[in-house]
Amino acid sequence: MHKARMLTPGPTPLPEEVRLTAARELIHHRKEEFKHIFARVRAGLKYLFGTKEEVLILTSSGTGAMVAAVENIFSPGEKVLVVEGGKFGQRFREIALNWGLEVVSLPVKWGRAVEISQIEEKFKEHPEIKGILVQASETSTGVMHPVQEIASFCQKKGILCVVDGISAVGISPCPMDEWGIDCLLTGSQKGLMLPPGLAFVALSGRAWEKVKSNCKRPFYFDLIKEKKKVVQNQTAYTPAISLILSLEASLKYFTEKGLKEIYLKQRALTEMVRAGVELIGLELLVKEHYTWGLTSVLLPKAVSASKVLKYMKDNFGYTLAGGQDQLKDRIIRIGHMGYVDYVDLLGVLFALKESYVACGGFSGARNYLEESLKVYFKTLSAGGC
Amino acid sequence: MHKARMLTPGPTPLPEEVRLTAARELIHHRKEEFKHIFARVRAGLKYLFGTKEEVLILTSSGTGAMVAAVENIFSPGEKVLVVEGGKFGQRFREIALNWGLEVVSLPVKWGRAVEISQIEEKFKEHPEIKGILVQASETSTGVMHPVQEIASFCQKKGILCVVDGISAVGISPCPMDEWGIDCLLTGSQKGLMLPPGLAFVALSGRAWEKVKSNCKRPFYFDLIKEKKKVVQNQTAYTPAISLILSLEASLKYFTEKGLKEIYLKQRALTEMVRAGVELIGLELLVKEHYTWGLTSVLLPKAVSASKVLKYMKDNFGYTLAGGQDQLKDRIIRIGHMGYVDYVDLLGVLFALKESYVACGGFSGARNYLEESLKVYFKTLSAGGC
Repeated sequence: MHKARMLTPGPTPLPEEVRLTAARELIHHRKEEFKHIFARVRAGLKYLFGTKEEVLILTSSGTGAMVAAVENIFSPGEKVLVVEGGKFGQRFREIALNWGLEVVSLPVKWGRAVEISQIEEKFKEHPEIKGILVQASETSTGVMHPVQEIASFCQKKGILCVVDGISAVGISPCPMDEWGIDCLLTGSQKGLMLPPGLAFVALSGRAWEKVKSNCKRPFYFDLIKEKKKVVQNQTAYTPAISLILSLEASLKYFTEKGLKEIYLKQRALTEMVRAGVELIGLELLVKEHYTWGLTSVLLPKAVSASKVLKYMKDNFGYTLAGGQDQLKDRIIRIGHMGYVDYVDLLGVLFALKESYVACGGFSGARNYLEESLKVYFKTLSAGGC
Repeated sequence: MHKARMLTPGPTPLPEEVRLTAARELIHHRKEEFKHIFARVRAGLKYLFGTKEEVLILTSSGTGAMVAAVENIFSPGEKVLVVEGGKFGQRFREIALNWGLEVVSLPVKWGRAVEISQIEEKFKEHPEIKGILVQASETSTGVMHPVQEIASFCQKKGILCVVDGISAVGISPCPMDEWGIDCLLTGSQKGLMLPPGLAFVALSGRAWEKVKSNCKRPFYFDLIKEKKKVVQNQTAYTPAISLILSLEASLKYFTEKGLKEIYLKQRALTEMVRAGVELIGLELLVKEHYTWGLTSVLLPKAVSASKVLKYMKDNFGYTLAGGQDQLKDRIIRIGHMGYVDYVDLLGVLFALKESYVACGGFSGARNYLEESLKVYFKTLSAGGC
């Protein structure tokens, strides 16, 4: 009876142009027509990442780009600092350990952002650290870590700053060159509004120097091999051609609207959802330093998040995400990245409140839809980003 | 003026159902609807591979599955035999060396199939070999290696037989369990008639035992992690969802037509092209043991393959493939795998002859189109496979 609506923190709804492009007949990835498209895609990706460096395209999940970053930049035996404030921080640790790195873990309470003083402290204890691995946006909680400060700390200390921008790139500002980030990576199914299957990674000049000095590299995710190919508008291995065609359509949206406007919309959506959740009487998991692509709602212990999610799906047609690991059954994550606008969120706020109440929660909220809409438009008018 | 026609040995033309499915809105990869589709896909892949084992789905190029096979099955320091009769044999060697394996190379003239006696000989010299890596179909030349014999040799010697089936699975018979293959892998953009971006790998019980005994595994291509997930109708990392939806459509074609009928069509197309090429007066690169998904045409030294390819593209709308490495500019590879039928090949034979003559070649061929069609239908009527 209701339209199916998927508002998860990846994959996201797809713009029509992206979907229709995916249905086109393929073109061959070693021929001229493809190379012309690839050249436009390269330029668009540089704009998106805020870098003069090449953004390499990998055919893999976002995790593949995390692996590519760690295994190209660091050599087994080297020490790295991993900011661990969620599932993807943990993943960086696992990847680093699997590659034989020595990991200094910096645990952060899930839902909180790391503080730069914590990083300084760890570095004092372990001055031999070669780099810091951190999420710009920790998708499992919705926290935004202070990447600009961390990057500038890394610059000062002469170490490398590797940033997982999977739920940040194209969603909130993360200009690679301006902030001095040494490695920025993302996946296709978040801000880029594409199906999953592509991952992207760019390295600074400093990071490239380090990569070249390492003697060991992965075969499939060999970034030096990819860099040689990218300048010929090619990839080392047969890429996910249909996704690259769709990528061109998606990047056009960024270059035509401009990043500033898109970030502003993302921030306004975030403020709208946060206002709505609080008006309903629910708690926000992340009190400050929240990301702009998803919002985590912390339910009272008496109400099961899984039940609320099922109720929302069955009665209102919404697919949202739950929590992972220690937040399993405790939170609901509302994705509002990419091809999502304020009307999509009106429905989700209503469905959330109704389902929460139906599953045993209490809310006396009235007028919360209109109020949260006002927050949306007020944020837009204030401008900024 | 002419329709664009891509007849390369991957990517291939896509059936309409595959393309339209790729344009659908996404569904979430951790929810029930996806799991139901995944369950059907798992069953279809087992049928396609001819195995009772799970066929794992990786989001990567076909090369990713080659890496996954080598890096999960073998431990650094172990010795493997690599059959090298083309570019993909070379790739197996490179992957093995990068993983720290000791490689015994068995070079085979490009265009020839390996002989089992050559393998026996190498094994006598190196009885400590743990496995043999071989292409079922070497895509760079169009040779079919005797995989059934090699697998049975491996069984006898208690070593592992790893088969790259990238241009064989779904094209010519390669029943994994029946032949005793220990690892069979393929990519999405060949027999499966999908865009590139997915790769598939299945292991025998013996191979799984070996994987479990190894202490080192890659992170992204960790097959033990994938095996734990596949039984829950999941993948370890966010998969290329749209390609998996299309995969369901493609597998339906195999289960509905039946593999036997599809193989027969593939063989008939191959016989048709071979007959046509010879009637034109051109040389076939592979005299015997040719694959059923592509045909390599060896041009006389005086005629540049690149020029003929360009002429075919400009004047007749055909995109075909050239040769790689030592066969660069010497051969034309006609892809006839997947969603290709006899009418597609009529045009390509005509365009090949006309372009060859226009680029300085000689052909007095007449009636070659009708004759090659007769070969096609005669092969079909004879049945078999």
